[in-house]
Amino acid sequence: MQRTDVNTLGEFGLIEHLTRAFPLRNASSLKGVGDDAAVIENGDFCTVVSTDMLVEGIHFDLAYTPLKHLGYKSVVVNVSDIYAMNAFPKQITVSIAISNRYSVEALEELYEGIRLACEYYGVDLVGGDTTSSPKGMVISITAIGQGEKERLAYRSGARAGDLICITGDLGAAYLGLQLLEREKRIWQENPDVQPDLENQQYVIGRQLKPEARRDVIETFLKIGLKPTSMIDISDGLASEIFHICRESGVGALIEESGVPIHPESELLALKFKLDPITCALSGGEDYELLFTIKPEDTDKIRFLPEIYIAGEIMDASAGVKLSTKGGNLHDLKAQGWVHF
Amino acid sequence: MQRTDVNTLGEFGLIEHLTRAFPLRNASSLKGVGDDAAVIENGDFCTVVSTDMLVEGIHFDLAYTPLKHLGYKSVVVNVSDIYAMNAFPKQITVSIAISNRYSVEALEELYEGIRLACEYYGVDLVGGDTTSSPKGMVISITAIGQGEKERLAYRSGARAGDLICITGDLGAAYLGLQLLEREKRIWQENPDVQPDLENQQYVIGRQLKPEARRDVIETFLKIGLKPTSMIDISDGLASEIFHICRESGVGALIEESGVPIHPESELLALKFKLDPITCALSGGEDYELLFTIKPEDTDKIRFLPEIYIAGEIMDASAGVKLSTKGGNLHDLKAQGWVHF
Repeated sequence: MQRTDVNTLGEFGLIEHLTRAFPLRNASSLKGVGDDAAVIENGDFCTVVSTDMLVEGIHFDLAYTPLKHLGYKSVVVNVSDIYAMNAFPKQITVSIAISNRYSVEALEELYEGIRLACEYYGVDLVGGDTTSSPKGMVISITAIGQGEKERLAYRSGARAGDLICITGDLGAAYLGLQLLEREKRIWQENPDVQPDLENQQYVIGRQLKPEARRDVIETFLKIGLKPTSMIDISDGLASEIFHICRESGVGALIEESGVPIHPESELLALKFKLDPITCALSGGEDYELLFTIKPEDTDKIRFLPEIYIAGEIMDASAGVKLSTKGGNLHDLKAQGWVHF
Repeated sequence: MQRTDVNTLGEFGLIEHLTRAFPLRNASSLKGVGDDAAVIENGDFCTVVSTDMLVEGIHFDLAYTPLKHLGYKSVVVNVSDIYAMNAFPKQITVSIAISNRYSVEALEELYEGIRLACEYYGVDLVGGDTTSSPKGMVISITAIGQGEKERLAYRSGARAGDLICITGDLGAAYLGLQLLEREKRIWQENPDVQPDLENQQYVIGRQLKPEARRDVIETFLKIGLKPTSMIDISDGLASEIFHICRESGVGALIEESGVPIHPESELLALKFKLDPITCALSGGEDYELLFTIKPEDTDKIRFLPEIYIAGEIMDASAGVKLSTKGGNLHDLKAQGWVHF
């Protein structure tokens, strides 16, 4: 029997490869694999479903991640996908597999974080599964949201001429992770040394306690704006813009000067000898939103806080390019997180 | 900090302990944790959601479980929970974590089983997540179904005087597992010995390729029967009847002579020096349905194939009892699967 290493396909390639033989048979299945969430029709409203699995040693490291933060973040990761459909999360299910080295008290911490996130985002925990694992912890959360059919924003709706917008700032969660990993290595080599997080509360907070952009989706509803396409930035801007371009059949031009980077991220990147724009393009876990709007909607967002215009959708033939501050034009590469 | 071992609470105790601080805030959350599935209201129809996590080394052993069967079964386990609500599954999401010792071809086998089950049960794969794991495989599936609000069958609807009914037969999946485990041990001690499955296709099939009772739920719809309560038998009859009694606030009397056991299971149990009724009561993974009906509905089910009347719902004060073939009355004990 042939043996193809899973590494050869990459995460997205693997999902696509494995799921392409699955047709949608039920009329209510409006959207299957391939967006932030699946969409199920239920009369006037649609049920929007997204699921994520977090694996100890791959997605989180309990050496520096408090369990309460982990619980909170695992909800955020999922509700972020629902917001990225321009819908509102309403319910979640939480399944966990844990080895018996975890105590009930440890799980209580985890669930306290889950509870806080449920409270903050107004979602109900409605089900789940708790089982043992031979080693480590796995958390699988499914978020269920509701959206008006006509307001849902898919990855496929971007058209040439649309403006590319980004919420918040990018790269900080990645830099927070670098800092935590560095301190972990130092601590492993010399357990007497206290971690020196250099007063980098901002980037550490972005890594350990991210928030999903509920506020932005509420604002869209209030001002009557419907993005032509939207995706949440979990794997880095470059990876996400490629998803939008591929699903929409378009190209894109990103202006380096339009990519929002926090001053603290910028300084820390330079300290780590990293290019800040690379952190913003390829670092993950910011959970900001990337969306496109029709040019005539520009005035609706121009004066909104924390929304930045970072480029323009082009014809597919233009490819996906980055225009640097120095005036050069580069092909953008989607690196994102590589889990395999 | 206090350290309570997770074993002390048991699986159901642990879920209850961890989730009791979670209120339901959204009007659409009709039913949260505590039934086969959660129920979300969407106009005339309800969305029914259930999720299960299967962990290598805990729920399945790849030494004797073909990946295609594993994929098929992991869908069955989930759609069975939707049928147990008297609803019909429509969509699933599939998340898997795998170590890099699995090849793409191995995953294709797994997904081929998932695809076959989707086809057979008429469900659409609409999403999921694929990630790596440091060790072993974890499969987390969420099934989403649709049911008429007035026809949903909860665990809480059983009333004294209702008849207790069981579909199919019980204990075979457990005995199939015993047989496979025995052959694995023999093979581990002497790899030259070929497995002797003793022509036990029936019990092996019940373990490796179970089916959910779609046919029974379709029949209920056709004959206009609504069970007063229902649950799928995944952890053994005793455990399930306790769930119904607890949620409904009732007691139960199970007649040993009414518990359906396949002749092949009966013979194999005796060969293994096990009591067949114990296998039926405490062996899991049969994925049959346990349901209760009003006495006046008896004629509707009396002549249906594969539906057996196994006892009667009593007042709570009567407890949960087993009336043996020998005429003795025993307190029933819920053992079920203990995963911790």
